[in-house]
Amino acid sequence: MSTDFLARCAQVVGDANVLIGDDAASYLTDWRRRFSGRARAVLRPGSTAEVAALQKLCVEHRVPVVPQGGNTGLVLGSVPDASGDAVVLSLSRMHRIRSVDPINDTLTADAGCTLLQLQEAAAAQGRLFPLSLASEGSCTIGGNLSTNAGGTAVLRYGNARELTLGLEVVTAQGEIWDGMRGLRKDNTGYDLRDLFIGAEGTLGIITGAVVKLFAQPAGRVTALFAVESPRAALDLLAIARQRCDAALTGFELISDFCLQLVEKHFATLRSPFGARHPQYVLLEISDPESEQHAVTLLEAVASLAFDQGSARDAVIANSLSQSAALWSLRERISEAQAAEGKNIKHDIALPISRIADFIADTDAELQRRFAGCRMVTFGHLGDGNLHYNVAAPAGESDEAFLRQQPAVNLIVHDSVHRHGGSISAEHGLGALKRDEIRRYKSGTEMDMMMAIKRALDPLNLMNPGKVL
Amino acid sequence: MSTDFLARCAQVVGDANVLIGDDAASYLTDWRRRFSGRARAVLRPGSTAEVAALQKLCVEHRVPVVPQGGNTGLVLGSVPDASGDAVVLSLSRMHRIRSVDPINDTLTADAGCTLLQLQEAAAAQGRLFPLSLASEGSCTIGGNLSTNAGGTAVLRYGNARELTLGLEVVTAQGEIWDGMRGLRKDNTGYDLRDLFIGAEGTLGIITGAVVKLFAQPAGRVTALFAVESPRAALDLLAIARQRCDAALTGFELISDFCLQLVEKHFATLRSPFGARHPQYVLLEISDPESEQHAVTLLEAVASLAFDQGSARDAVIANSLSQSAALWSLRERISEAQAAEGKNIKHDIALPISRIADFIADTDAELQRRFAGCRMVTFGHLGDGNLHYNVAAPAGESDEAFLRQQPAVNLIVHDSVHRHGGSISAEHGLGALKRDEIRRYKSGTEMDMMMAIKRALDPLNLMNPGKVL
Repeated sequence: MSTDFLARCAQVVGDANVLIGDDAASYLTDWRRRFSGRARAVLRPGSTAEVAALQKLCVEHRVPVVPQGGNTGLVLGSVPDASGDAVVLSLSRMHRIRSVDPINDTLTADAGCTLLQLQEAAAAQGRLFPLSLASEGSCTIGGNLSTNAGGTAVLRYGNARELTLGLEVVTAQGEIWDGMRGLRKDNTGYDLRDLFIGAEGTLGIITGAVVKLFAQPAGRVTALFAVESPRAALDLLAIARQRCDAALTGFELISDFCLQLVEKHFATLRSPFGARHPQYVLLEISDPESEQHAVTLLEAVASLAFDQGSARDAVIANSLSQSAALWSLRERISEAQAAEGKNIKHDIALPISRIADFIADTDAELQRRFAGCRMVTFGHLGDGNLHYNVAAPAGESDEAFLRQQPAVNLIVHDSVHRHGGSISAEHGLGALKRDEIRRYKSGTEMDMMMAIKRALDPLNLMNPGKVL
Repeated sequence: MSTDFLARCAQVVGDANVLIGDDAASYLTDWRRRFSGRARAVLRPGSTAEVAALQKLCVEHRVPVVPQGGNTGLVLGSVPDASGDAVVLSLSRMHRIRSVDPINDTLTADAGCTLLQLQEAAAAQGRLFPLSLASEGSCTIGGNLSTNAGGTAVLRYGNARELTLGLEVVTAQGEIWDGMRGLRKDNTGYDLRDLFIGAEGTLGIITGAVVKLFAQPAGRVTALFAVESPRAALDLLAIARQRCDAALTGFELISDFCLQLVEKHFATLRSPFGARHPQYVLLEISDPESEQHAVTLLEAVASLAFDQGSARDAVIANSLSQSAALWSLRERISEAQAAEGKNIKHDIALPISRIADFIADTDAELQRRFAGCRMVTFGHLGDGNLHYNVAAPAGESDEAFLRQQPAVNLIVHDSVHRHGGSISAEHGLGALKRDEIRRYKSGTEMDMMMAIKRALDPLNLMNPGKVL
């Protein structure tokens, strides 16, 4: 049966685009190389019509489908399971920017375009597509939308969902839904768009999208603030939001331990302050007027923060290279902690007003249970999104500590839940957090999600074993 | 059976909150007084638990439910049909602001709170809830969310959907879904929130919401520009967006005929220009810094617009009362056209880049078919949302012309569809546009909407006859 099925797939996409064996291997292993699945084949359609034709074959032959973009996901959402039943449907050949409309401020793209392609196509017309992630050279817009990607610009521009106006989707039945609307307002029925966004390929295959563009800022300036505590960082956030409103485009928390790790593993990166401080905030202003105006705004924020006792010290970058150096202190944390050893990572979100209490409570609970464990806490404080990572106590082996991961996760995620937070801020559920989420979602919510899944994918062919 | 059913309802909410006869009448007639339906009773629960208990009774007795907020809708979405089978479930007794969290920048409210209550509760904490509509003193946040309301601040802050973080919903089965999350990032499964938003009460009953707050602007300044054409208005929009970015909070198109109607029916309102111009743009800047800075920004926009030939003239308000007078020219159009007579209204959205072509094409087609008909065209140009209204030719009776409404709608909405637009930008479908939308939505889209409806409301009890 499988031979017949693959032969029919080859009639749709050509033999060269039905990959098996070694050719398929890189599509079957996840980004962090923690898991390799199996598949009948990797199919690489070249158009939406080919996606639809393949999906119809999968329905006829009851073959599960794992849609895949850049395969940069962190929760095993884009790789198949070990059964070998599924096909991987890679959108990577569909990488055409269909159009840019600078008057409507929209860009229309195939799902397989990389995020970087979209950013560059917008910039070529003098506009900004603000979604920005570490993997932007490899990840695709289809994957970004299927996981409702976050990244560094959410504070000002929102998640991938808020950046999207229209979608093209191949349904589980193999029909093409043309929802490619470039409209700011459209109240004509159920919001199918936002149902497919964030569904991680379990309801259908996103094949194209219309996204919003924005003005490129005229000036962008960065500052590093030294603060007493997470609570003081929140006071600074309130000042910055009030004073800068939408010009506030970055507000990142960095603990002193994170900064020390960066300094230890990157010889050229140094704290700009003479003294140590408990916490730091990287604050970025993007100004439609000028760089000078951005500096003036930042100086006003700093002045208010000192007056109100929210900041202990501050450094404002006075050149692009100084800005880049300050950002490096934040961006190199991931590499610095990897160089230091392995740790247990959590991608969590909290109501911003609960963050200080969450950190205090959870740090204390972890110390009671795992005395001396080291907290690597940083993240997008302005979005309430923390990377709350836990490393082994000094002297203890990483491997021994990593065996405690289920117990650590339970403490952290139960605390997140008690504080009204989310155990997956921007990575999604995939296969990795699929079971864990049942601990925190109500039966009513799970029932509704299951009902929608059955309604749109009654044969359970779309990315089975993910999300639900 | 009905007597038994109502007696059981009275056990839940008390006799005083089961309204029949004259007491129920005002709940059965729509805002524009075009239609009065019938109902077994109007039920007025006082809590989410009571809503759930009533819904369970409705399931048991198979009684359709029409959820109702302020009953200010324009598409017959919140009134029952003529059968008398349904109950109206009014949320008007649930009007408590549950909490305001200025650090998380969120407000939590019962669904029956008026929009004005939310605005005032935010303002009392020095924050802004930006959703703003003509009916804000009467409409409720539950209704705003069920219809994904738009209004005058969408350009900067988005529709009701973009302003909402969390929901509490009583499902069609009478279960309470607690989705009251105050999180900027949360990727843990399907986006149920946005499915209930805009569903017009056909999937469940919104009983509470967590909405986003923003900084109050420090200064707000308005200008009126005179422009040659809708296309010139779009050039001005591009300049203003680039120069002001998020500080641009209003961009409204007013045709000269609209302005003439306002001047004719309001003796105190006058064009600030010495000469007539074909079109005008009302442009508003809201500045986090100061009013003076807003004026400087506006002067820069005007200067660029004159240099590039996009504007013929401009007046910048130099006081709050001048700003208010300019806004009156826009806000009084609805009353002025009502005073002039009846007309055929359309609430449409288009890709912004298609607006000039749409107006030219559709005006011409209407003139060919209905020579001399008068176009009352204005609206939220920055959102692509036009109020594109058609009045009888001078000398012809309104009544005779209104009989042409189906033919006029067909020309306008077919043209909207050809230009990639929406036939309901912000009002929803309700009972009024339910049949018409089938002409413009694909079978694939209608099938998915029907599948979701059956999945979440298999007994078809929720607001039947609306949307689908």
